Amino acid sequence: MPPSDRTELGRRCQRLIGALAAVTDDPHGVTRLYLSPAHKRATGLVADWMRTAGLTASIDALGTVRGHLDAASGPGAKRLLIGSHIDTVVNAGRYDGVLGVVAGILAVDELRRRRVALPFAIDVLAFGDEEGVRFPTTLASSSAIAGRLPPGALDLCDARKVSLREALVGFGLDPAQISAAAYDPAEVLGYLEVHIEQGPVLEHERLPLGIVTSIAGQTRLKATVLGEAGHAGTAPMNLRRDALAAAAEIMVMIETIGRAGAADSLVATVGQLSVSPGAVNVVPARVDFTLDVRAASDPPRLAALAEIRARSREIADRRHVGFVMEAYHESPTTPCSPRLAAAFAAGVERLGLTPRRLTSGAGHDGHAVHHLTEVGMLFVRCRGGISHNPMEYAEPEDMALAVEALIGAIEALAASIPAA
Amino acid sequence: MPPSDRTELGRRCQRLIGALAAVTDDPHGVTRLYLSPAHKRATGLVADWMRTAGLTASIDALGTVRGHLDAASGPGAKRLLIGSHIDTVVNAGRYDGVLGVVAGILAVDELRRRRVALPFAIDVLAFGDEEGVRFPTTLASSSAIAGRLPPGALDLCDARKVSLREALVGFGLDPAQISAAAYDPAEVLGYLEVHIEQGPVLEHERLPLGIVTSIAGQTRLKATVLGEAGHAGTAPMNLRRDALAAAAEIMVMIETIGRAGAADSLVATVGQLSVSPGAVNVVPARVDFTLDVRAASDPPRLAALAEIRARSREIADRRHVGFVMEAYHESPTTPCSPRLAAAFAAGVERLGLTPRRLTSGAGHDGHAVHHLTEVGMLFVRCRGGISHNPMEYAEPEDMALAVEALIGAIEALAASIPAA
Repeated sequence: MPPSDRTELGRRCQRLIGALAAVTDDPHGVTRLYLSPAHKRATGLVADWMRTAGLTASIDALGTVRGHLDAASGPGAKRLLIGSHIDTVVNAGRYDGVLGVVAGILAVDELRRRRVALPFAIDVLAFGDEEGVRFPTTLASSSAIAGRLPPGALDLCDARKVSLREALVGFGLDPAQISAAAYDPAEVLGYLEVHIEQGPVLEHERLPLGIVTSIAGQTRLKATVLGEAGHAGTAPMNLRRDALAAAAEIMVMIETIGRAGAADSLVATVGQLSVSPGAVNVVPARVDFTLDVRAASDPPRLAALAEIRARSREIADRRHVGFVMEAYHESPTTPCSPRLAAAFAAGVERLGLTPRRLTSGAGHDGHAVHHLTEVGMLFVRCRGGISHNPMEYAEPEDMALAVEALIGAIEALAASIPAA
Repeated sequence: MPPSDRTELGRRCQRLIGALAAVTDDPHGVTRLYLSPAHKRATGLVADWMRTAGLTASIDALGTVRGHLDAASGPGAKRLLIGSHIDTVVNAGRYDGVLGVVAGILAVDELRRRRVALPFAIDVLAFGDEEGVRFPTTLASSSAIAGRLPPGALDLCDARKVSLREALVGFGLDPAQISAAAYDPAEVLGYLEVHIEQGPVLEHERLPLGIVTSIAGQTRLKATVLGEAGHAGTAPMNLRRDALAAAAEIMVMIETIGRAGAADSLVATVGQLSVSPGAVNVVPARVDFTLDVRAASDPPRLAALAEIRARSREIADRRHVGFVMEAYHESPTTPCSPRLAAAFAAGVERLGLTPRRLTSGAGHDGHAVHHLTEVGMLFVRCRGGISHNPMEYAEPEDMALAVEALIGAIEALAASIPAA
């Protein structure tokens, strides 16, 4: 087959992504939960594509489809891992995850068509558990390749009381082979992932591609403001302990702190809030809200949290209301590899594009793979920054640029490997 | 019977209020909805008390119990109305409304025991529809004595599809007699009401009694802030249209405007608020909230509303979010009569107490009676400002002072009437 031009590459991305979108557990939208019937069919389809691209396809004990390409330099060479996930949220978009798997397959296929010989092997990986929707675990499949599947994960159950172990067996997999799914860190060169941005930065800056510097650490907290109910007509403003007025002042402060941290990609979000008793003519006695704080690295996130805590305390004390805030989820920042970011930058610059660097605010498989090897990520512009939604969309031209940038990154890495 | 001293008057208030609290539709608390079986029994009990106090008891077409005392000066004298209500909210306190009826009966009884001759008749009134809980109307009984029961009110139905007309007939009343329930304004001297404050001002200032200058007008509104959903991790702070962050800024502004209006007894309350989609990791797209604004007179309330509207608009425009706010209930201020306030002040000062003047933030029967005659109200301190709640409490000593202040007000009015 001749090499594809940019237009053809975009069409091929679109075609494969469309084919996988048709593989769904819900005919009214794209829903492919981990180890579901649709996921099973998707692994077969992806394995077929891999074989067509010249890769040797297999599936590991966690359901990750692996497409292997030997190094031109023969056995003993290291492996470059390229991957993303093919599971989805409920009523998902088509591009989240799938684009990275398709980009990996098409990049290898193009390298073959262009007769590029590589001094390392490539494994294209299609993970199955990135979204964490079905089981109360997440990144099980990418954790397994890093040899870090948490003990006890197999006993976790989905909403229908099916354990992960039972689901793996039902899928045709052998849980006894899980340890064999782990790579030896010594044989791995790094991990590259292409993914839609799921945010508005690239669109806002009119750039098709961005290079991820880190996957943001995050803290999720629950806060409660405890005031005193009162009659909305008879309680004078100065005698109130209005929990919602206090929460409003706290929220304005949180937003101000978040905005001040733009240089650190700090974001702070109050996403849920409930008011009690919640009557038009009653001064609110209690407000519960959630807070989600992320940043490009851990120190600014932790500093922002400390400041939010201290200033919330001040506001609550001044207003004579109670305030408690507790973290219920915390994950540290995953730094991306400067070496792999430089390789992606070389690929992006070769296309005449600015290698815009940005933080990933969302979590990704790289968060788990980071424990095995260095991680590099390339973001692709998506319309309106919308993801986890049927409205999710990436332009074929942008996807083609992403495949080309991935090819460029692979060639840059190849060029950096000293001749044996 | 000899006159009661202060301690005895307090005990008598407590005894009568306790007896009426036992008349309830729900054995687990005090619930006496308009025209319910408990209301029926309550009218009988109140009529008995009136007769014992030397009043002629009757019931009008809306269920209001009327206890009439002739003027010492004989026929042709005007009538002073004294009253409050005996209906309650669900799971109510004992004092709301009932105290005013008991105070009226005991004041008349004491005037008789003290052999005070009055140049006017007195009607003590026990209204039945102040809380507006059962039917989608409110103040039906006090509106009827003002000849202002809205046309169509009889057709309004409760939750069980019983119309007000059917309920009146079931109660043993004759809806054809409604127009006869209206007083001739020319024969009425004024209306006095004693009521618990239902707010914290008197307790805060360590005063047992307060004189109401007006029943606050109020506006209730529904507001919607429309932003744009976004991923809490990937949407940078400066690209967000966070509906909740905008609402928080608006709420801080509303509270600031409310506080600035203390001299006008302005209060502004956001009591209900809901966030959509309401997920920890999603930037809120939409916030709906209610706003309740009241003040001692209409101009400051309307000015505050205009300022809240204008500044909300500015905040929304600056943040590129949508904002709409619509009033769904509006009632004008009911000014209290300076003449009747002065009479209450005379009664309060006679007890050696400061005649603290304050606004009623809550609505009262006076709001309807105002269309018939001048209204005067005396507030009695209640614990913690708590009302509409089983925790509602007024000290017997404070209630005794209220009865004495009412007696003093009646005597002050009597003294102001030129001898025939």
